[in-house]
Amino acid sequence: MPPSEHAEALTGNQSLIKRINSAAILRLVRQEAGLSRADLAKRSGLTKSTVSLLVQELIDEGWLCESEAPVSNAVGRRPTPLQLDPSRLALLGAEIGVDYLNVVACNLQGKLLGSCQQPYSPSDLGSTLTALAGLIAQQDASLCAQGWRVLGISVGVPGTVDVHGHRVGMVPNLGWHHQDIEQPLCKALKRAGVRQSPVKVLNEANAAALSEYVFGTGAQTNSLVYLSMGIGVGGGIVLGDRLHLGHDGTAGEVGHTVLQLDGPPCRCGSRGCAETFISQRAVSLDITGTPDPVLPIDELARRVAGGDATAVAAARRAGRYLGMLMQNICNMLDPAVLVLGGPMVQLGPVFLDAARECFAGLQARYAFHTTEVRHCRFGINACAVGAAGAVLHEALMA
Amino acid sequence: MPPSEHAEALTGNQSLIKRINSAAILRLVRQEAGLSRADLAKRSGLTKSTVSLLVQELIDEGWLCESEAPVSNAVGRRPTPLQLDPSRLALLGAEIGVDYLNVVACNLQGKLLGSCQQPYSPSDLGSTLTALAGLIAQQDASLCAQGWRVLGISVGVPGTVDVHGHRVGMVPNLGWHHQDIEQPLCKALKRAGVRQSPVKVLNEANAAALSEYVFGTGAQTNSLVYLSMGIGVGGGIVLGDRLHLGHDGTAGEVGHTVLQLDGPPCRCGSRGCAETFISQRAVSLDITGTPDPVLPIDELARRVAGGDATAVAAARRAGRYLGMLMQNICNMLDPAVLVLGGPMVQLGPVFLDAARECFAGLQARYAFHTTEVRHCRFGINACAVGAAGAVLHEALMA
Ligand SMILES: [Zn+2]
Ligand SMILES: [Zn+2]
Repeated sequence: MPPSEHAEALTGNQSLIKRINSAAILRLVRQEAGLSRADLAKRSGLTKSTVSLLVQELIDEGWLCESEAPVSNAVGRRPTPLQLDPSRLALLGAEIGVDYLNVVACNLQGKLLGSCQQPYSPSDLGSTLTALAGLIAQQDASLCAQGWRVLGISVGVPGTVDVHGHRVGMVPNLGWHHQDIEQPLCKALKRAGVRQSPVKVLNEANAAALSEYVFGTGAQTNSLVYLSMGIGVGGGIVLGDRLHLGHDGTAGEVGHTVLQLDGPPCRCGSRGCAETFISQRAVSLDITGTPDPVLPIDELARRVAGGDATAVAAARRAGRYLGMLMQNICNMLDPAVLVLGGPMVQLGPVFLDAARECFAGLQARYAFHTTEVRHCRFGINACAVGAAGAVLHEALMA
Repeated sequence: MPPSEHAEALTGNQSLIKRINSAAILRLVRQEAGLSRADLAKRSGLTKSTVSLLVQELIDEGWLCESEAPVSNAVGRRPTPLQLDPSRLALLGAEIGVDYLNVVACNLQGKLLGSCQQPYSPSDLGSTLTALAGLIAQQDASLCAQGWRVLGISVGVPGTVDVHGHRVGMVPNLGWHHQDIEQPLCKALKRAGVRQSPVKVLNEANAAALSEYVFGTGAQTNSLVYLSMGIGVGGGIVLGDRLHLGHDGTAGEVGHTVLQLDGPPCRCGSRGCAETFISQRAVSLDITGTPDPVLPIDELARRVAGGDATAVAAARRAGRYLGMLMQNICNMLDPAVLVLGGPMVQLGPVFLDAARECFAGLQARYAFHTTEVRHCRFGINACAVGAAGAVLHEALMA
């Protein structure tokens, strides 16, 4: 076969190749703002002319901008630093919490452009989506009025979601089981007047993991585990630049890894799960001696900070088991970063120092991993901001 | 910019694109032998002419073959099924065990073409590599005489290896710590007269995981965890079609995830590690009451099979903790397949049924995952065959 035919056959998928290359460029700039076209050519392995062409299109479409005006000096034009454009494309993220709905709008750099919360009592899926769509419509209208283009909408839910993001599996705290969610959500959004946008549904801990991964500053890391500790304990795992969803979409259920054989009963039906030691539910039970009601996190935090002996002991005990769970996550996955997040973080140093101490003790002679442990950056907004991050992440994974 | 310039800029990396596409085709055929060129075009998204071109080159180079002669019928030529060519390219895999060296030669389908073992006492890295290179040279010469082309050589070691495969970290059973291994191995091979071939070093459990993943029959899965249970316990993780090595290359150290806070001391310096409950070392200690010597696996297996009450109780106890570890792996990673391997499997149903029972019990009401659990296919050769598989896997990851 002559070379020309060769080339023709190989370039049959130009638009696909172009999309892949554009996404690769955006991923590089996301990881390290300030790269120039020449840097991008070096790192991507693409030619300089290809990079220039693609960057110009990305600038035209609102993805990239030059972060300073080009400067000429004696030697010639200095390379122009590029960054994700913070001013034209917007991301909408939402959280269906156990007792509130939260919607945020972000720019491509994760900066909050607006948000609205609404208290909420667990209800059927339909009513919940209608209420949520109303909040999203508010944010959407406001973005539209300001001239933003919305890239997409993503929603985090407190339960398992299938790998396609079409159906929820188990959402025990809301009483939902095995129901379609993507289609009803699209319909609710349409009824609420939201312009057509891609929609994505994901687990809340997975969303929170993306908040740290997509909008985390600096560190060029391609693996991160997020621990979401509240009423229960969930986890989100990013490996090789992707959310690791697992075979059934239930990877990251670290709250139901077992820390004690024949341990305390867990609401999942098993025994000795991490959640029976580390959660708000566990600490409350430890203090009050009764599983019901679960003390609010503010109340628990106040008692621990106030030095209440029972509360301090309970927080310390939970912390030790958190250290054990951290060790198990790190020795199994060896992530670059482990983020501690969720309401339980409000128990402060009594809880967190006990965890770090136990974690350090377990590493002992052999340090298998050098994982960086840090705290969540987005507090109460972690899930919603992460859902917004999921929109960007999806786009960059083309 | 006019379209022609567009196309030129976008095709600047033709040879890279071609390599990526060829590898994609080989991966598809590896996952499912019997695909035709038309099937490959559909699944890869490449045009039919690109696929035909690439397939012809892969046939010419010894990677693919047509598994039946093309048949003509009334309607025309039937699509020709393709498979990895079993007759021209060979893979060399080796294991440095704690008391033996093992070298195997395989074809692209994982069929054993030859093997040689040698008993061995732990020794310094240099002498070990010299002995190993001698065995590899034998296999290499024999393949060469039969007209095979050797694609590469890969070696599994019983310890941690850095992400690049250049250095070993901790190899406690051989007394090696933080030493270069790739360069000395290349030199030893050269001295032994082995023709220049790419060389790769990896952890033994990672290698064993690849034996199941690369040469496993049928099931199109892209995630698998391999548990290697012997003197100690190791794990190998394949996620998203790649070995998950982790940030420091130490992912999969499931033997040192903690199953009991303040549990029995582990040789890693920590306490309550999985290895202190599930390994040959643990069962032997449970039976004899002393850590030294560790009873040989044959002896342990004989006692368990013979119904010795102490041995049976010890095997059952180890099995229950294995069930707990399986639950933790599945709830964290949700792999498609979990493979139980290593010498401990010889303890048979007493050990393995206890594990499956405990595992099933822990899943209780919510089944978070539907992981398929099965036993290792390659027995004593798992690591060496998997090392050979690593050579193929590497080539397909282009
Ligand atoms: Zn549970
Ligand atoms: Zn250990």
